Amino acid sequence: MKKISLLFLLFPLIIKAQTPDADSLFIHAMAVNILSSDASHNNLHYLTKNIGGRLSGSPQMYLAEQWGAKALQAAGADNVILQQCMVPHWIRGGKDKAFVLYKEGNKQQKYQLNVLALGNSDGSGPNGVTAALMRVNNFDELEARKNEVSGKIVFYNVPFDDTLVSPFAAYGKNVIYRSIGASRAAKYGAVGMLMRSMTNTPGNYPHTGSLRYIDSLKKVPAAAMGLDDVKKLDSLFDNNIAVTASLFTYGRMLPDTIAHNVIGQLKGSESPEEIITVGGHLDSWDAAEGANDDGTGIVQTIEVLRVLKALNYHPKHTIQFVLFANEENGTRGAKKYAEEARLKNEQHIFALESDAGGFTPRGFSFEADAEAWQKLNSWKHLFSPYYGDRFETGEGGADIGYLKEALQTPQAGLNPDPQRYFYIHHAATDVFENVDIREMKLGAINMAILIYLVDKYGLH
Amino acid sequence: MKKISLLFLLFPLIIKAQTPDADSLFIHAMAVNILSSDASHNNLHYLTKNIGGRLSGSPQMYLAEQWGAKALQAAGADNVILQQCMVPHWIRGGKDKAFVLYKEGNKQQKYQLNVLALGNSDGSGPNGVTAALMRVNNFDELEARKNEVSGKIVFYNVPFDDTLVSPFAAYGKNVIYRSIGASRAAKYGAVGMLMRSMTNTPGNYPHTGSLRYIDSLKKVPAAAMGLDDVKKLDSLFDNNIAVTASLFTYGRMLPDTIAHNVIGQLKGSESPEEIITVGGHLDSWDAAEGANDDGTGIVQTIEVLRVLKALNYHPKHTIQFVLFANEENGTRGAKKYAEEARLKNEQHIFALESDAGGFTPRGFSFEADAEAWQKLNSWKHLFSPYYGDRFETGEGGADIGYLKEALQTPQAGLNPDPQRYFYIHHAATDVFENVDIREMKLGAINMAILIYLVDKYGLH
Repeated sequence: MKKISLLFLLFPLIIKAQTPDADSLFIHAMAVNILSSDASHNNLHYLTKNIGGRLSGSPQMYLAEQWGAKALQAAGADNVILQQCMVPHWIRGGKDKAFVLYKEGNKQQKYQLNVLALGNSDGSGPNGVTAALMRVNNFDELEARKNEVSGKIVFYNVPFDDTLVSPFAAYGKNVIYRSIGASRAAKYGAVGMLMRSMTNTPGNYPHTGSLRYIDSLKKVPAAAMGLDDVKKLDSLFDNNIAVTASLFTYGRMLPDTIAHNVIGQLKGSESPEEIITVGGHLDSWDAAEGANDDGTGIVQTIEVLRVLKALNYHPKHTIQFVLFANEENGTRGAKKYAEEARLKNEQHIFALESDAGGFTPRGFSFEADAEAWQKLNSWKHLFSPYYGDRFETGEGGADIGYLKEALQTPQAGLNPDPQRYFYIHHAATDVFENVDIREMKLGAINMAILIYLVDKYGLH
Repeated sequence: MKKISLLFLLFPLIIKAQTPDADSLFIHAMAVNILSSDASHNNLHYLTKNIGGRLSGSPQMYLAEQWGAKALQAAGADNVILQQCMVPHWIRGGKDKAFVLYKEGNKQQKYQLNVLALGNSDGSGPNGVTAALMRVNNFDELEARKNEVSGKIVFYNVPFDDTLVSPFAAYGKNVIYRSIGASRAAKYGAVGMLMRSMTNTPGNYPHTGSLRYIDSLKKVPAAAMGLDDVKKLDSLFDNNIAVTASLFTYGRMLPDTIAHNVIGQLKGSESPEEIITVGGHLDSWDAAEGANDDGTGIVQTIEVLRVLKALNYHPKHTIQFVLFANEENGTRGAKKYAEEARLKNEQHIFALESDAGGFTPRGFSFEADAEAWQKLNSWKHLFSPYYGDRFETGEGGADIGYLKEALQTPQAGLNPDPQRYFYIHHAATDVFENVDIREMKLGAINMAILIYLVDKYGLH
């Protein structure tokens, strides 16, 4: 390995854009500050290790709100607002369990599955459900074999399409099985649902996530399993061995409860009535620490505030640093934020979200009109030294999408490199140790650059 | 996390370049083939687990050459050439050890250091060297305190500059301490050298690498330690505690020995006399498996060959897939390859190297004239879907650099994301388990795209 010196002299045209100007100097100062500071490391460590998983309605959610308010204050917010909203309150209710029974020759065999009930699912209760297990590879097969479904537990075995370069695209193809697979099976009389986890990593960690029951259908218990267990089940089904499954889950939806968006403000000096939003979501699934989903987005949001204050930057517009409530199973915080903005006739000129992990940054997805898109692209060279200059068109994110709907607010989502996200997404492996702090900081740097430029120059 | 649908309709101008043409269809077929194939996984597994570390002159080097020839054949090479060269033959000679002695109050304390002798260094022998340890933070301090050096072991404590975005730049700043720090200390009478490892990761793994003695000076033993040990030593020096160090190393330079560049050829159908080179280096340091340095470069090189053959591509030019000998401590394979090319008046129109780890690709560094640079940039959109469209000017790499010198061959180096490389570089952690196979495959895809386009269209 040896590739150090750059042959700038051969290509003077390439470095033209790198002549230091006020913007690139300020941006460099932000980058050095963020890379040198322990603040983001310490914030993420506290959130993941001292608070941990923080699902809507859980005691940890309230701890996270209190911590978030303090962290925004410590980072230099002019003031911190707790914006109340009602959120769903789902509890897991116990330790999810499952096993299968089958015969090898004449001998009865038992194989334990490592499962996690899907979020929002109703539990089987302590008696569990026990039924013949029926494997289907997709909804088409379910429909073709619908007469066989009644009284069974349906096992959806839908692998990630590894030929897609972005695992987010593979996730997007399959997520419908997690969201409505249980109801689709219940429609034909299934008594339970098991599924291959939404992941492309070997190993045996189950990945949870939101399920959405169709109201008119029976709410059957539903859980995900890791890929080693899938392999085991495949070996049975491929050999035409009859399998009986028992599933024990305890999930329960309690009445909606109170939560808060935690909002830190930097007041604008020139156009305080025009608001820029930057945020991530504070809630996370219960079975892990919510480190990459979305601890890193929270910490990066706070880091943007901290670095702007640390460098004594006075924004023209009001910047709101938002730790959104309840992204995982309701996006009620996001809806509340957009609804209040609309009711109060607020002017939201831009919104940025980080909710795709703390991995090394690639760039941003933008939803903006042609004029703004052109302006954004004229800034690309300022992101390039920090590896965030891949500008694409696409959604900003789940939490700021409602602002777009309500107020046509232009928006952006940070795009980290997507390859490693589904190794840990909604699984017990989404812990502090699986965050690369330097990569997370590089994401924060690119977010800070974007907020700085939009504040200084506007998008139109 | 939810960002799936792309708002292409809003931005028709953006997708213009994505209208499928013959090139993007062929490229897509290569990508799907590489992402679906187990070949690269299996090749890397064999090279790292069945052969392991393969320093020049070691028995493993010969096993790796034999394996490489077979792997190139299996991937579809028209023929495989073993190009002989003489290489340095350094052996570690034993298990490196070091400890320090110091007093806490009146009590003598002993602290073991985890060290690795630097490559090419002469050992202390079984009696070791024992001397007062002198910490310096850089060469300036060494010069300022040169009168104190005689009879001591010098400890260079030069941390990575974490404010530099690319760790390769931080490495480039410090690598001189590893290469000539021992001689610079010996000049003033030092009897040994210890150094902070060339890494930015916490933990306690020492990172080895090439040392270069200045001939006129005494060849003192030299070793690197991990960062936990540095922290311990710092705590002693910061408290003005006198430290004595003992260092036991056994390195020895044996006479040069025979090695080979292993070269697989695909014969050109139109201009067979014009040669395109793609390669990595087959040797690796002895203390690890040489997985990212440079097992991944080797496997990617073979993968480019495999996919071109699998898709029945008939190159216009002759493509040489080169597993270079001896990059780590001599680059003698590279020199031989360039020298033969010059002596035989070969026409080398392009060379590509992968030697910066198997991490998710960013793009390439190019050394090429303005016309070629313009042509390369006109292809950027073909790399973009595979995340390899960050085109920079810079060196191609250590092995193909000699072709540039000898024949002005335009060249490129694959640039994976640089953040994680120095966590494992030349340390015991550079093992198969620390390679992300999908990320390595994405690198191979981008290499295949570049080779395909240069072969099909040329650079001029």
